[in-house]
Amino acid sequence: STKRLKLSENARASFEGAYDVSVLNEKRTQKAVFLQGKFPENPEADAVIILEQKPFDVSPKALSGLLSVETELSVDMNNDIYSTYNAIPARGICGLKATLIYPASKKHINKYKKQDIFAITETGEDYQQITLPYLEKQFSNNVFNIQWVYNILDHKQESERIIFEDCDPETGFVLLPDMKWDAKDAKSLYVIAIPHKRGIKSVRELTGKHLPLLENIELKALGAIKQKFGLDRKSLRLYFHYQPSYYHLHVHITHIELDIPGTSVLRAHLLYDVIENIKLKSDYYQQKTFSFTLVQNDPLLEELCTNRNI
Amino acid sequence: STKRLKLSENARASFEGAYDVSVLNEKRTQKAVFLQGKFPENPEADAVIILEQKPFDVSPKALSGLLSVETELSVDMNNDIYSTYNAIPARGICGLKATLIYPASKKHINKYKKQDIFAITETGEDYQQITLPYLEKQFSNNVFNIQWVYNILDHKQESERIIFEDCDPETGFVLLPDMKWDAKDAKSLYVIAIPHKRGIKSVRELTGKHLPLLENIELKALGAIKQKFGLDRKSLRLYFHYQPSYYHLHVHITHIELDIPGTSVLRAHLLYDVIENIKLKSDYYQQKTFSFTLVQNDPLLEELCTNRNI
Repeated sequence: STKRLKLSENARASFEGAYDVSVLNEKRTQKAVFLQGKFPENPEADAVIILEQKPFDVSPKALSGLLSVETELSVDMNNDIYSTYNAIPARGICGLKATLIYPASKKHINKYKKQDIFAITETGEDYQQITLPYLEKQFSNNVFNIQWVYNILDHKQESERIIFEDCDPETGFVLLPDMKWDAKDAKSLYVIAIPHKRGIKSVRELTGKHLPLLENIELKALGAIKQKFGLDRKSLRLYFHYQPSYYHLHVHITHIELDIPGTSVLRAHLLYDVIENIKLKSDYYQQKTFSFTLVQNDPLLEELCTNRNI
Repeated sequence: STKRLKLSENARASFEGAYDVSVLNEKRTQKAVFLQGKFPENPEADAVIILEQKPFDVSPKALSGLLSVETELSVDMNNDIYSTYNAIPARGICGLKATLIYPASKKHINKYKKQDIFAITETGEDYQQITLPYLEKQFSNNVFNIQWVYNILDHKQESERIIFEDCDPETGFVLLPDMKWDAKDAKSLYVIAIPHKRGIKSVRELTGKHLPLLENIELKALGAIKQKFGLDRKSLRLYFHYQPSYYHLHVHITHIELDIPGTSVLRAHLLYDVIENIKLKSDYYQQKTFSFTLVQNDPLLEELCTNRNI
């Protein structure tokens, strides 16, 4: 079709001629760089180009290509049994993954642009007076749309992806793979438990009356994961995010070897700790001062900073 | 000297001829691989070879080399404005850092070999009955030696590295850069606050009587960091590790943009949360069930697994 033809024109044979190139962000640990630029055929259109080193191919053939005379070494440091080198492998031994978004909108560019992040605290009072009114305004303006969550719970969407379901309206939940997981490799397991009960925005609103829900999720999600993927609690992390990325309560369950940013102490709250703290004090999470990070352009940051003295 | 001559022989011109190569570990996110192997000149000696992709050079010259006709693209996926590619840059555009340990001891090999990790829980009772007796045995056998901490507190070592000191024996502490930090680049700040008070092994032993110590560290460490490095609490994380790597209480203070594994919810406990929880209940941390990860060969894992039913 014409549409298909037109779409495939956006794929390129080369990045040759890219100009006005600037760095939106660098992730040095992950060996990735996020670039903005233009191509000669259209000076009006912006491109986002993401370049990322691929993980090493550890097949015997690839390793013998790496550990060969083709890999040029220059000594950087040499001390006793230790030495370090700058190594230049033969062309094609190491590859990159490149992602092109073209033409890219302002929103795409902002998404990949480095944002300063800030650690912030929110007392129980801050939540009532600042965060909650802000969330309610976003809901009524339809900025925070969680219809997609309800579509999952009502089996209107993604029902084929459901791993396990308990239909009880108070304590039941749906268990399904996170979008980031291929639902196959157990070593990188990432599933989400979403309660059927509506109206619990986040861990901030949990009290003693939610203990049956929380304990049911702990028990049955672990049971289903054990049965389907052979993993027990010694290999898993169960946690909430605060702030979450959407305001319908959900539990993240990930393999402990999965190295992901959302497991930081400034965002993750272990389900076990939440259950224990609520047993200690039913309104523990209404009283708690939460610490979390927000990016510079998150409207909640401005709300919290301008509406109190910090 | 003969010694220098001999040592420099361990640096190599190439990894050509490496054999019996096996993968000790892979860090796919960091694009690193840890290999074990042998070289033809000495079949008795083992080598550890660490290969890691370097971060991208984002200088204009390097970027124009990357975004050129020399970088061979093959389309992987193309959908509307999004396309992904396998990209093979010209030789020398992307380099590796290689580290060689040769000859490597069994200890080196074990250090780099992938260890399975397990998430484990420790109740207050487990601590009293299993962990504490284990720690005390390690101390009396001198396996856990913290003399180096006392050397810092007594100004016998590293006194030139001290950033700030409060000499009060109950609430005072020494603030100094962590070994991993160059003490210059504020964006990767990593400092440690070590109390003068001896005998507090970890956050597990903190109670209401330690509040003056904790609040003094929070106040004065933040003040010193603000003055020396221009960073305030919005850019910093203050936390304990549990389990810690040494059993003299200490607070980690790191820049929030520093992406390091010790900030995970399964290891880090925010100083603010600790103060708040102790104010709620003086023996909060004696009663708490801690969740943390241990590597397969950590003797504490065996102690905790064999001495109770889990």
